[in-house]
Formats: sequence, structure tokens, C-alpha cells
Amino acid sequence: MPERVFNFSAGPAVMPLPVLEEAQRDLLALPGVGSSVMELSHRGKPYMAIHADAKTRLVSLLNIPDTHDVLFLQGGSRLQFSMIPINLLKGTDKTADYILTGSWGKKALEEAVKEGKTNVAWDGKPTNYNCLPKQADLKLTPDAAYVHMTSNETIQGVQFQAEPEVGNVPLVSDLSSDFMSRPVDVSKYGLIYACAQKNAGPAGVTVVIIRKDLMEQASSDLPGYLVYRNHAENDSMWNTPPTFGIYLLGLVCKWLQEDMGGLEKIQKQNEAKAKLLYDAIDQSNGFYIGHALPEDRSMMNVTFKLGDEESEKRFLAEANEVGLTQLGGHRSVGGVRASIYNAMPVEGVEKLRDFMLKFKK
Amino acid sequence: MPERVFNFSAGPAVMPLPVLEEAQRDLLALPGVGSSVMELSHRGKPYMAIHADAKTRLVSLLNIPDTHDVLFLQGGSRLQFSMIPINLLKGTDKTADYILTGSWGKKALEEAVKEGKTNVAWDGKPTNYNCLPKQADLKLTPDAAYVHMTSNETIQGVQFQAEPEVGNVPLVSDLSSDFMSRPVDVSKYGLIYACAQKNAGPAGVTVVIIRKDLMEQASSDLPGYLVYRNHAENDSMWNTPPTFGIYLLGLVCKWLQEDMGGLEKIQKQNEAKAKLLYDAIDQSNGFYIGHALPEDRSMMNVTFKLGDEESEKRFLAEANEVGLTQLGGHRSVGGVRASIYNAMPVEGVEKLRDFMLKFKK
Ligand SMILES: Cc1ncc(COP(=O)(O)O)c(C=O)c1O
Ligand SMILES: Cc1ncc(COP(=O)(O)O)c(C=O)c1O
Ligand SMILES: [Mg+2]
Ligand SMILES: [Mg+2]
Ligand SMILES: [Mg+2]
Ligand SMILES: [Mg+2]
Repeated sequence: MPERVFNFSAGPAVMPLPVLEEAQRDLLALPGVGSSVMELSHRGKPYMAIHADAKTRLVSLLNIPDTHDVLFLQGGSRLQFSMIPINLLKGTDKTADYILTGSWGKKALEEAVKEGKTNVAWDGKPTNYNCLPKQADLKLTPDAAYVHMTSNETIQGVQFQAEPEVGNVPLVSDLSSDFMSRPVDVSKYGLIYACAQKNAGPAGVTVVIIRKDLMEQASSDLPGYLVYRNHAENDSMWNTPPTFGIYLLGLVCKWLQEDMGGLEKIQKQNEAKAKLLYDAIDQSNGFYIGHALPEDRSMMNVTFKLGDEESEKRFLAEANEVGLTQLGGHRSVGGVRASIYNAMPVEGVEKLRDFMLKFKK
Repeated sequence: MPERVFNFSAGPAVMPLPVLEEAQRDLLALPGVGSSVMELSHRGKPYMAIHADAKTRLVSLLNIPDTHDVLFLQGGSRLQFSMIPINLLKGTDKTADYILTGSWGKKALEEAVKEGKTNVAWDGKPTNYNCLPKQADLKLTPDAAYVHMTSNETIQGVQFQAEPEVGNVPLVSDLSSDFMSRPVDVSKYGLIYACAQKNAGPAGVTVVIIRKDLMEQASSDLPGYLVYRNHAENDSMWNTPPTFGIYLLGLVCKWLQEDMGGLEKIQKQNEAKAKLLYDAIDQSNGFYIGHALPEDRSMMNVTFKLGDEESEKRFLAEANEVGLTQLGGHRSVGGVRASIYNAMPVEGVEKLRDFMLKFKK
């Protein structure tokens, strides 16, 4: 096996090794087919089976009820920032509520204001997005078009532990950076979306799970690609889907089911991994300064700073030298960010924890 | 090497073997980096170098002048059907002219009518899209927003040999299925676009080459992903690009440059490949019935029928058995379609030609 580092990138991010190995083995020719998966027509039987398998595995892993459709789209989560209000808000006189817990929620709102009326139900800015709202803090609009939240803020490292109460209003959640990291009760949501490049596959596929009745209202005069209904009616083949990415997403689901034992199990492992790093931070006597308040900490993106920029630079450089890579915080906030998605082995987190202890000395 | 068939799919389509081999070799860990290309942050140096290399190679291969920008987008060519009128027509009182030479041009028009005034400059429907217009046939609008054409109609198999004369009006062309199959004078175009999954890489990347001044007019109130300017200003990293697809596209460009000797050379090979099949059709005494008029035939998609559906079915089944796969015509027109893109070896076309001669007996 070639030498692999432990890669803490926030996304595109580390993939499960068995997934890469299977993809590598079959890259020139899928057994029994004689072409690479990426060379197959999306309308032909071999790819259609791969497409259906990826979807079936997702439905099973997340226990997706019949009320919801699964779509594989392009354009990333940022295209979803527009598609959501275009499909659910535009042309109504309703208001969409946005809960702002970090950078991604703010960017989602930026697109929504172009499409209709919006309301900021809560904004974590006063404390620099280091915590989440309590239910009583939320200023929700009665009969809103939807409430938008960001399940896990990848840049700040804060993650919801439970859904806010929104009554009958559809709840819409950006799960880009904690998708399939733990079970989720899909029936509570009107729409869930996640770009694949953190927990589910390579960049270039975005999963949308949408309650079927929410697809009805969008006008047919909208750009065809932007209408969820078009994708749902054509099983995500309204146009050519990103076939190789969907194949890899299916392999990631298979890995979660067969090697990792499902989402309850991976959640336990994710909690244990995160605890290793948060303990190192909490027991460092202020050498490492965590960004998020303890109760709102992310299991996926562990964000912290060192006392001064000089040590931070040294930390990142020395970590890189020992094969702990891509640990720099997002360019908008700096500091250190360890993204420890599903595919980051416990061993990698232990190595980082050991490095943190040693560096502190 | 695993057994590979000759795959005549119209897209996603056959990839150059050396590209697949290099991708396979490095799939677990890019040498000197220690992660798979698909695991790399798009903001980190190793991926940024890959991104820049793909772009540089494209610019060099197509001789793209400084007046134009190269963008790597998601959403396929069908999202371009909307983005083009949204960026170049919407909000003006101009008209966009559409030259309809087949199924894809019609679908492009369907999206444009949603965004502004359009005019059908020519429609090949009366002869079932088997030919192209002469210059005198075109009913162009003076001072149009742009003229849209489809360089190669993938389904019908008709391909322009030269650009229509459009004066000072920007010419916009869908090169999805003949991109990089021959040199193109980019300076003649306002915008060129091509989804990668035929001649340039896997599904999930779409190349847009756009004259810089045409990006200025789009309103900032449009959905962010749909504004070309956003992508241009951020070197196609306004959001996470489809990194692995762009990497493969770069490898395809390298193969064209280093193994195939550039676009003039590949054009000669493509012409020779197409001639093998068209000669077999023309010399079959009507056993094989070509769809396109000889002077408008596509070098990329050779479309023909057999006298009756029964023989056609047998033709496709027997071809499949000898490793000549995915030869069925598009589900909207039926018949046989041999897509012989750059990456289809001469050997594969010869084998198909031999099969055609034998089957006829
Ligand atoms: C929570 C969250 N939302 C949205 C995005 C944007 O995704 P994309 O770059 O695929 O548009 C990201 C990451 O990039 C993210 O972490
Ligand atoms: C000429 C042409 N234009 C547009 C498309 C649509 O591309 P996509 O499916 O990527 O949207 C295709 C093929 O699928 C095509 O052949
Ligand atoms: Mg994506
Ligand atoms: Mg991020
Ligand atoms: Mg595409
Ligand atoms: Mg086609």
C-alpha cells in the first residue's frame, strides 16, 4: 500500500480506505461489464443498478420514510442555498426563518433574501458563533415557509444535538458536514441536504432528501435544473448525473453498513474520537483554546486556537511533518481545525492527540 | 489488464486508457502527498496545482485567447441551457437566436424562452434533423443578444463544419459532444460550453469558455451559483469544485497533448475513424441507412438504421456479444448510434466496421 497520511481536511475530506481500494480495483473495468464505471451510460443497465443500489443503501441507513424522495444533484450545497428558497419560498407571500449559527447559515441566508421574505430567527454573531440557541431564544414566524438550520457549522465547529421545535413548519437542515455521522429522524424534516465531500463521497454530488409534497408548488417556468420535481420525476436522471461520484457514495454507504455496523455504531466511534481531542484541549490549562462552548461542540470539526499565531504556525508545520495534514482553520477564521469525519480512523485521532500533548511541552 | 470491451456509449463515454491507468495508480495516494486526489482540500496547494494544470492545458490545447475565461462548473450542459440566457439575455430587451439542428438545441431553447425573447433562426424539423442550414437559410435578428448553435447534435449525428456568420453578435455554441475533437477558433465565440462526459472526462464537470466582457451584465440578485462572474472571479472555486473530475479532465488534456499530438492530429484520426463507418454504410446497398446527409455527418456520433426493427435488435445483441457495447440509438429516436469520441481506439472502430460487413451477409 502506498504511504497515506492522516488528512484532517474539512472537505473534500478523507475517504474510507476500503472504498478507495474497491474503486481502484475496478477503475479500468467493472467485473462482468468491461468498462470503467465512469464510462457507463447512465441509461444502461449496469449503471442503473449502481444508481439504484446507492439510493437503496441511503434509504436503509437513514431509515428514510416513503414520504420523502432522495435526489442526487450537482452544484454543491451552495446551489441548494438557492434551490431551497426558489422551490419553497419564491412566489409565496410567506417568510422563511433562518437560524444563523455560523458562516454557512449566513451564506444560505444571503441567497434566500434574493428569492423572498426572510427572518433571522437567531444569530450567534454576538458571541462569535461559539454556541447554539436554546428553544426559547428562537424568534420563529408563525406559518413560515420553512425554518432553515445548519446541523453542523463546519467552520466554527458547533453542532446541534437535537432539532429545534418548529411545529408544523417544514424544517430544512444543512447536514453537509455531519451527514451519516449519526442517525437522524428524517420524518422530522421537510428537507435535508448535504454535499458529499465531507462524509459521503467526493465533491460533485449533493444529496437532497425532500418531503414529496414540498415539491409540488414550484413554478414550471423556473430554470429546469433548479426544480426539485424534475429530478424526482426522473430518478435524478433529468440530465446526466455525476455517475462516478454516486458510485463512490454507494460504496461509502456499503462501508458504513457492512464494515462499520450502521449509524448508531459510527456515532459511538465519532463521539469517542471527538472526546480524545476535546479532552486534550480541556486538560491543556489554556494552552489550547477551544472555540465552541462545551455543550455545543461538533463531533466532526474540532476548532481551537493556540495562544499566539507564531505557535499556531509551528503547530501546523510540525504536524504536517509527521503526517497529520490539512489542520489549518478555515481562511476566514484561522486557528486549527481537525475535521474527524467518519472515515478518519481512531488511530489518526490518537496520533493527533499525542502530537498535541507533546507539542504543548 | 482486465478485459475491456469497445464501448460506443454517447456519454458518459469511453475514456483514454492511459488516463484511467494513471488515475488508478494514484487513487489511494498521490505521490508526495499521501492522500487521494479526491481527498484533497480544494484550497490546498496540491489540489490547486492540479486545478491550474488542467486549466493551463486546456488553454494551450484550444489556444484560448486572453479575452476569454475558462470555468469548471457543475450541473451539466442542461444547467448551461439556463445559465446562458440568465446571464446574457434576462433583463435586456434583446432577442436570442436559436439554430435548431436536433434534440439538444431544442432543449436549450426550452430554457431560454423562460428568460427572455427568443427567435428560431432555423429549424431542421421538416427533414427530421438530418441536415444543417446554409448561411442564407438563417433568419438572424439584427443586434441579437446572442446566436445559439449546437456544434454537434449527439442524438441525430449532425455536426457543423464551420461557424455560421453572425457579424458582431456573440456566437454561443454547445460543444458537449465534439469538444477537443478538432481545433476551434475560440476568438469567434462569445461562449463555448461542454459537459465533460463525452470527450473530456467523467460526468459532473462542465467546461465554459466565455468572453470576459459578457460576464459583466448579469444582475447580482441572481442565484449566486448561476452567475458566471462569481465563478470567474474565484477561479472556479466560488464553491467546492468537482475536484476529481477536473483532475481527470486535466489527464485527458495531457493525453491529447503528449500521446495524441494535439487537436489537429486527433481530428485526422477522428476523420479516418468516421470514414470507416460511413463507407460501410454507403457501400451496403441500403442495408444500413445513414440518418444525416453526407455533407453534415458527425465525426463523433454515427447514426444509422437497419431496414427493420427485428434486424436492428439482432444487430445490437450480436454486437454486444462480441464486445461492441452500448450501440443502441438514443431512446427518443432508436436505431444504431456509434459514438466514436477521441478515446475510442481505431481498433475498436475497425472491429465494428468488420462486424457490420459480416452482419450484412
Ligand atoms: C455546512 C456546509 N454547508 C455548505 C457548504 C458548501 O458546500 P459546496 O462547497 O459544495 O457548495 C459547506 C462546505 O463547503 C459546508 O460545510
Ligand atoms: C450536445 C449535448 N448538449 C447537452 C447535453 C446535456 O448534458 P448534461 O446531461 O450533462 O446536462 C448532451 C448530452 O447529454 C449533449 O450531447
Ligand atoms: Mg457537491
Ligand atoms: Mg468547509
Ligand atoms: Mg456535467
Ligand atoms: Mg446524448
